Amino acid sequence: MEQKALHHLLEQVAAGKLPVDEAMLQLRDAPFLDLGFAKPDSHRAVRQGIAEVIYGAGKTPEQIRRIALALRDQGQKTVLITRMSQEAAGLLEDTGLLDYDAVSRTGILGEIPEPDCDGAVVIATGGTSDIPVAEEAARTAAALGNPVNRLYDVGVSGIHRLLANREEILRAKVIVAVAGMEGALASVVGGLADCPVIAVPTSVGYGAAFGGLAALLGMLNSCASGVSVVNIDNGFGAGYLASMINHIGGNKA
Amino acid sequence: MEQKALHHLLEQVAAGKLPVDEAMLQLRDAPFLDLGFAKPDSHRAVRQGIAEVIYGAGKTPEQIRRIALALRDQGQKTVLITRMSQEAAGLLEDTGLLDYDAVSRTGILGEIPEPDCDGAVVIATGGTSDIPVAEEAARTAAALGNPVNRLYDVGVSGIHRLLANREEILRAKVIVAVAGMEGALASVVGGLADCPVIAVPTSVGYGAAFGGLAALLGMLNSCASGVSVVNIDNGFGAGYLASMINHIGGNKA
Amino acid sequence: MEQKALHHLLEQVAAGKLPVDEAMLQLRDAPFLDLGFAKPDSHRAVRQGIAEVIYGAGKTPEQIRRIALALRDQGQKTVLITRMSQEAAGLLEDTGLLDYDAVSRTGILGEIPEPDCDGAVVIATGGTSDIPVAEEAARTAAALGNPVNRLYDVGVSGIHRLLANREEILRAKVIVAVAGMEGALASVVGGLADCPVIAVPTSVGYGAAFGGLAALLGMLNSCASGVSVVNIDNGFGAGYLASMINHIGGNKA
Amino acid sequence: MEQKALHHLLEQVAAGKLPVDEAMLQLRDAPFLDLGFAKPDSHRAVRQGIAEVIYGAGKTPEQIRRIALALRDQGQKTVLITRMSQEAAGLLEDTGLLDYDAVSRTGILGEIPEPDCDGAVVIATGGTSDIPVAEEAARTAAALGNPVNRLYDVGVSGIHRLLANREEILRAKVIVAVAGMEGALASVVGGLADCPVIAVPTSVGYGAAFGGLAALLGMLNSCASGVSVVNIDNGFGAGYLASMINHIGGNKA
Amino acid sequence: MEQKALHHLLEQVAAGKLPVDEAMLQLRDAPFLDLGFAKPDSHRAVRQGIAEVIYGAGKTPEQIRRIALALRDQGQKTVLITRMSQEAAGLLEDTGLLDYDAVSRTGILGEIPEPDCDGAVVIATGGTSDIPVAEEAARTAAALGNPVNRLYDVGVSGIHRLLANREEILRAKVIVAVAGMEGALASVVGGLADCPVIAVPTSVGYGAAFGGLAALLGMLNSCASGVSVVNIDNGFGAGYLASMINHIGGNKA
Amino acid sequence: MEQKALHHLLEQVAAGKLPVDEAMLQLRDAPFLDLGFAKPDSHRAVRQGIAEVIYGAGKTPEQIRRIALALRDQGQKTVLITRMSQEAAGLLEDTGLLDYDAVSRTGILGEIPEPDCDGAVVIATGGTSDIPVAEEAARTAAALGNPVNRLYDVGVSGIHRLLANREEILRAKVIVAVAGMEGALASVVGGLADCPVIAVPTSVGYGAAFGGLAALLGMLNSCASGVSVVNIDNGFGAGYLASMINHIGGNKA
Amino acid sequence: MEQKALHHLLEQVAAGKLPVDEAMLQLRDAPFLDLGFAKPDSHRAVRQGIAEVIYGAGKTPEQIRRIALALRDQGQKTVLITRMSQEAAGLLEDTGLLDYDAVSRTGILGEIPEPDCDGAVVIATGGTSDIPVAEEAARTAAALGNPVNRLYDVGVSGIHRLLANREEILRAKVIVAVAGMEGALASVVGGLADCPVIAVPTSVGYGAAFGGLAALLGMLNSCASGVSVVNIDNGFGAGYLASMINHIGGNKA
Amino acid sequence: MEQKALHHLLEQVAAGKLPVDEAMLQLRDAPFLDLGFAKPDSHRAVRQGIAEVIYGAGKTPEQIRRIALALRDQGQKTVLITRMSQEAAGLLEDTGLLDYDAVSRTGILGEIPEPDCDGAVVIATGGTSDIPVAEEAARTAAALGNPVNRLYDVGVSGIHRLLANREEILRAKVIVAVAGMEGALASVVGGLADCPVIAVPTSVGYGAAFGGLAALLGMLNSCASGVSVVNIDNGFGAGYLASMINHIGGNKA
Repeated sequence: MEQKALHHLLEQVAAGKLPVDEAMLQLRDAPFLDLGFAKPDSHRAVRQGIAEVIYGAGKTPEQIRRIALALRDQGQKTVLITRMSQEAAGLLEDTGLLDYDAVSRTGILGEIPEPDCDGAVVIATGGTSDIPVAEEAARTAAALGNPVNRLYDVGVSGIHRLLANREEILRAKVIVAVAGMEGALASVVGGLADCPVIAVPTSVGYGAAFGGLAALLGMLNSCASGVSVVNIDNGFGAGYLASMINHIGGNKA
Repeated sequence: MEQKALHHLLEQVAAGKLPVDEAMLQLRDAPFLDLGFAKPDSHRAVRQGIAEVIYGAGKTPEQIRRIALALRDQGQKTVLITRMSQEAAGLLEDTGLLDYDAVSRTGILGEIPEPDCDGAVVIATGGTSDIPVAEEAARTAAALGNPVNRLYDVGVSGIHRLLANREEILRAKVIVAVAGMEGALASVVGGLADCPVIAVPTSVGYGAAFGGLAALLGMLNSCASGVSVVNIDNGFGAGYLASMINHIGGNKA
Repeated sequence: MEQKALHHLLEQVAAGKLPVDEAMLQLRDAPFLDLGFAKPDSHRAVRQGIAEVIYGAGKTPEQIRRIALALRDQGQKTVLITRMSQEAAGLLEDTGLLDYDAVSRTGILGEIPEPDCDGAVVIATGGTSDIPVAEEAARTAAALGNPVNRLYDVGVSGIHRLLANREEILRAKVIVAVAGMEGALASVVGGLADCPVIAVPTSVGYGAAFGGLAALLGMLNSCASGVSVVNIDNGFGAGYLASMINHIGGNKA
Repeated sequence: MEQKALHHLLEQVAAGKLPVDEAMLQLRDAPFLDLGFAKPDSHRAVRQGIAEVIYGAGKTPEQIRRIALALRDQGQKTVLITRMSQEAAGLLEDTGLLDYDAVSRTGILGEIPEPDCDGAVVIATGGTSDIPVAEEAARTAAALGNPVNRLYDVGVSGIHRLLANREEILRAKVIVAVAGMEGALASVVGGLADCPVIAVPTSVGYGAAFGGLAALLGMLNSCASGVSVVNIDNGFGAGYLASMINHIGGNKA
Repeated sequence: MEQKALHHLLEQVAAGKLPVDEAMLQLRDAPFLDLGFAKPDSHRAVRQGIAEVIYGAGKTPEQIRRIALALRDQGQKTVLITRMSQEAAGLLEDTGLLDYDAVSRTGILGEIPEPDCDGAVVIATGGTSDIPVAEEAARTAAALGNPVNRLYDVGVSGIHRLLANREEILRAKVIVAVAGMEGALASVVGGLADCPVIAVPTSVGYGAAFGGLAALLGMLNSCASGVSVVNIDNGFGAGYLASMINHIGGNKA
Repeated sequence: MEQKALHHLLEQVAAGKLPVDEAMLQLRDAPFLDLGFAKPDSHRAVRQGIAEVIYGAGKTPEQIRRIALALRDQGQKTVLITRMSQEAAGLLEDTGLLDYDAVSRTGILGEIPEPDCDGAVVIATGGTSDIPVAEEAARTAAALGNPVNRLYDVGVSGIHRLLANREEILRAKVIVAVAGMEGALASVVGGLADCPVIAVPTSVGYGAAFGGLAALLGMLNSCASGVSVVNIDNGFGAGYLASMINHIGGNKA
Repeated sequence: MEQKALHHLLEQVAAGKLPVDEAMLQLRDAPFLDLGFAKPDSHRAVRQGIAEVIYGAGKTPEQIRRIALALRDQGQKTVLITRMSQEAAGLLEDTGLLDYDAVSRTGILGEIPEPDCDGAVVIATGGTSDIPVAEEAARTAAALGNPVNRLYDVGVSGIHRLLANREEILRAKVIVAVAGMEGALASVVGGLADCPVIAVPTSVGYGAAFGGLAALLGMLNSCASGVSVVNIDNGFGAGYLASMINHIGGNKA
Repeated sequence: MEQKALHHLLEQVAAGKLPVDEAMLQLRDAPFLDLGFAKPDSHRAVRQGIAEVIYGAGKTPEQIRRIALALRDQGQKTVLITRMSQEAAGLLEDTGLLDYDAVSRTGILGEIPEPDCDGAVVIATGGTSDIPVAEEAARTAAALGNPVNRLYDVGVSGIHRLLANREEILRAKVIVAVAGMEGALASVVGGLADCPVIAVPTSVGYGAAFGGLAALLGMLNSCASGVSVVNIDNGFGAGYLASMINHIGGNKA
């Protein structure tokens, strides 16, 4: 409950317009839907400016469907669903509102909004195999109203591919660097750019990549400044944070 | 063998009622069933107040069936079976006594007892995906005679969902906090409650969750006091310990 | 802020006895001391029934002194300080109120209360080297009003030493099992006892003990039920939780 | 070399004003000082808008002194030195320009600039022991022209301490959350705030904290969105990134 | 090449019976079969007293068949094959000589020898799920001419089951202790027995068992003396070593 | 862009033959194919003397096909594809140019060149199960113009098998040592040979082999000099590096 | 308590010579000394044939002195003390009975017995730096009555040094292989010998040796049979087990 | 023993010039010095072309002195000693032959040879703190007769510093890339160069650098080809291998 709402409520109590017990109830009333197995946060849009998102992993297709429809019923225009299986997508097909992307395993129920800010989120990958994670970031950013600029397969083993896109890197307001294996892309991009770089290690690789651990550690130890890291394969988290940064203060100074 | 029984035996020997060699035998006689591949502990109810439980993982359906029936034959009224496959459940269906739950993969052969204590075991989860583990705890607690109170999907990313249930937390005699990812639920609940909190890390998550390791470490390092931890996904262990605590001393002081 | 206090506050507002802005202030007023570098929780005794404890590691002796005295000034009768260096103890000597124990590195400022419950907390160790951690648990339990029963050096390599104390184990309401190396003590005690066992892995050992990791993993995987685990060397946490359990419901049923 | 400069150079070559070999030289001329053992990046201010910083660990006091003076000689007004030993600070004392802070082990050679942006960087810590890392972040942010707002010792074990500062959290443009042990602070702050949260795990803790690993994993797996992570104890990195974000677009929208 | 054979060869050269170049050849002639993809060691029986064994994992059924038959052709009476799939067993069925056990996934091609020593190898397991590994050890010991004595499901959570078999433990010349989870069986057996205990950690367990790591570390840190450890799930290695020890010096002193 | 080309370009600009903006364009023009999802490096043959290779893992069969054909269209005579699935191979079958090997999962599109150097690359394995990785190295070396000499199943448990091939080891110009389990082969070969040894740990093994970690650590800690290590199962990397070394300076000195 | 003693006790009770309560007492009477902080196992010589040993790490010099003297008072002729500091040795100097070795940090209080068996324990090390651990094994074996044969610095990087001692290896009844770094010595010795090989990983090495982890994993994964492993740097454990094996059955068959 | 020597020996036996028993002796005679605590390999120069090197860690200053002098006595002109303490250096000062370098902690006893090959070994570091390891490599290469070319502090956070030295990288015959933190230098150098790159991870860094683990994993997973890795901080190993490669075939083709 926001400060302003609390103030208003107290004024009403003071004015005798709201009985004490009723005020008690409102103070305890939680701004979430209670479906028993889930409590989607309908208050998030107010609190954080971004509506509730459904993390699909570990939920049954039926659970996903029920949460998604409940959020729609609450008036949420765009419901993003990540880690969504083909089967779960199938259950929402009849709504005619679902845009499902099999590569990134994301679904968007409802409309994808027009970009509402000028800066583009630049998303770069080290290789082709990192694209599914990058697309999760890209689709998340798009669903949150950001133009997206993709630079795929520009890893450091052929650094001229990255340098060829130097201008786009220098112009960016925020960059998402997605890479597996040793994850060196983040350091090199971080050394070139003058904006925040969100590093996403991916589980691409084998052997001593240890499911993304090598890339994760590499990125955490980046010798470049301005780089921060999200979880392995967490395209959504990177896209979400990039959108937050991209929406600060209108255009880049 | 209990102290009292030992005393009695020695008295019988002293009184010449029991030959020395027979006493030898009894002293060596083990209070367990010997099925060759398994030695279920029929003595546990006497020793620990709680009857033998079957851990189903790594046992063939046929082995589970044989142990369960042997315990029933010994007079055990409620046989709890954890990590039980659908297939193993099928083998006990003909008894007409099995209550099987596919979500928690637990079977209860025989009757589920009426609660025999006043306090409820409160079971909270961080998310929807933690429910299978939580239900293992809930079903275990129920099978051991406890009322159960479920608070599901109250993770710290929307902390108002948890605070909305503050009263139940403050009233609890023991709480089971089930969470994957970073497992912060245990710390926050531990900071609010004034009763023991049993933290159950789950393997929910991906990437740097490392199969529950992140939640496990988080819970072990909880800055809140009164929190202890069981193995990753060990709903049974938490439910068992919660029941032990819940049965101490009747009602909460 | 407690439910009752909130209710009262709202009634005062409703009755016009408390201006809205004043209520705002009270609702935001935090029940803690703000020393800048620390915010000791003076509300904990109300909320959790146990007064604030000072974790000494990472605090300068001067910081410890200031927090301890501030808590005393607030009326806290017993201030427990863990991980306290000799140097920090020296700074509080002039109060004439400090009881410092160099083995467990704990200080108790003020009075050590008389035990206020019947059950004793049983504390067992695998070896002699585990005693510092065990004493941290013992001193914590004592500072919280519990009788303590010590069973030291009863590890499983000479299991007759443990079995010789079987009676005390069977009579216990709660047991703290402290062990390094492989930590098997917790499993064996857990198999014998019918009460909660709090396992404390210690960093005693070398090589593949990996600073307590081996004992920690061993205890988390205990095949005995009723065992839960706290952090490596966390004697305080075990003593605190043991006290919580020991204070439930008066005497053991 | 910037695009504009390159364009200009080519124009000069085209105009015959610059011989080919001279152009060759300039194109290869590196914008860094070459001290043999170090090549401080005098070009960084142009490229990234923030001047070169000296990472003191692993450098001898004499090396630090030489690099710092060289940068000063190049006209850099503020030279930040992190992980600086008392001994290294001593070597620069005679300049009369060094502001050294023993808690954070940072030195600032030259002037600390006036804040050049409106938003404040909010820096919160879980405990008192996290302050050295937090101060590294705070001093970095200050050296880069940011107002700083400190919220220390507001960890989740007494969550009312954090909630009491909710307003400052809601007003922030960027937050640095510094915590050791389980690092849950980042998740709770991330769930409350609507701005980017930079999580800094610290090596505070013991046992299964594994030198900050527990906090690191916890923060990487944060269930809250908008949270990203830097290296363990990397106060500098967090302060640097916070400054980058804080300087975007003037005031917060 | 054995010392004696070398001596003989040199004598023949000295006597002019063996030309130098022929001697060269013999000195370089390797005592193994060269099948290209494999070089089974036909010399091992001479060198180590135990004939070559086929480790089936990672070999195709056809490769296993070819190696097994080649060894038979060389006159090896008993060919033990471990980690053998049902499919590989099928390929050797037509020989009418294969004894295949699906539980331990071992095949014995040829005759299982009569025991040629008096002492029995005692094999104990913590639980029922450890039996496949225990049987690999048992079958290996049997194939190498040892009587085997099985004590299954005697884990420490119900220690009376183990103590009931104390006599067999005290009489043993060598014991193989097979256990997953925390692996405490090895320590307890090691504390009771006066003979070498070979500890075999198994991958039985879940969560923080980390595929046998917990049991492995527990066993390596055993506080009991006389315990050594082989690889996780390495029933073969334990059976082989047990046989070596069991064959020393005839009967137990 | 090579030094010479840059010089020429600048001369053309100086001579007025190339407009400034056109030069700008050329300086930014990247020597790679841009397929959107991939940017194969057509410049590598010029820069590194070895043409672009396709790493098949994580790419769809269709993506592999498109990259391979694009490289062929660019005039690349031999296109090596590693980690290639049977399905991907099927998609290139119609070209009539693919040589696919199911054991090593490598495809060679186009001609396998005649060896263009005298020295042979010696490839040794510890066991039969290491052959798939060894063959990836062998096929890579062959595709890059090297004679290959295979020594398979010469692990240290029967060291005479290795010593029997001592001469080939002593004659080698570079050796690839492929081994799983404890990976001791690299140390023993490294102690015998007087040329660079490239150690390839494999994921062969179980339990504490931890997917190749044991072999990797063993090889990194080799007490023999002249040994360096590539990633677990990285046959390609070893073959590539071996070819590089084998092509230095013609014949071995 | 031994079987025979139990039988005798029961006979005495049956004969009325021993009152029931007295028998109770005896049955509970533990065969250990209770010093409070330690319970040395005076029964071990009876139970395991080898007298109690003092593990000095984590014990104060005063505690070591008291335990050692108590064991002497009980009639133990040889008291072995491992991990003994110079300071602790100083405290026992006045007895005139202590033989202290600073390299292995072992003390032997009382007489070192004459060898009571024919076979020698062979102890080999990979390098010079492994000698302290090897000497702990050697001194333990000597204290337990074994002749010891040292082969130091015979690591596999110069395998001819090991092969030069092949005869001693072939003649051994049991071998202790002590090595750090990659620990390959155990595999090579295991491949040559026909007796049990006890592998002792040491913490010798740096970097990816990870304090002995690399050697430990290497030894656990040894491709040679007959090899088992003890904890890192556990020279004592290896010497103890070697003595056990060396005492079986008199001379080697 | 070399093939030729063996042939000669056999001829002498055949000719009756060498008695059989004498031949036996010679065949067993090991080409190493036996100092008891060490067996320096005087045969290595013959076998591997490079004389024995003394690894100083874990050896006492006195042991180092004795081995070094013994090798000198054997006629070895240059004795390289790595990980040599100041104290050990002091013990050899009186020889007047020691060149000791405190930064790399290496000593060279005897003459540093003139370079005997044309190509230079290029040694690059990511930062200033990596210099001690780089110098160990440089001094090793120099002691083995190689010209050395140092490129220090050219890490990827300011990639223009590396690109400015591109020509030297392109001209190199072998490159040693030394870096801590994320170790990205190896990948970027590997992508630019056309010669073998030996990557040396260093323990430079903090937090999630985990003592060099992050750099190690990063380098093992390098997306660039032609890169292989040695142990953390193993400057010696890199310098030795670089020398081996640099000596192949005279000049670079």
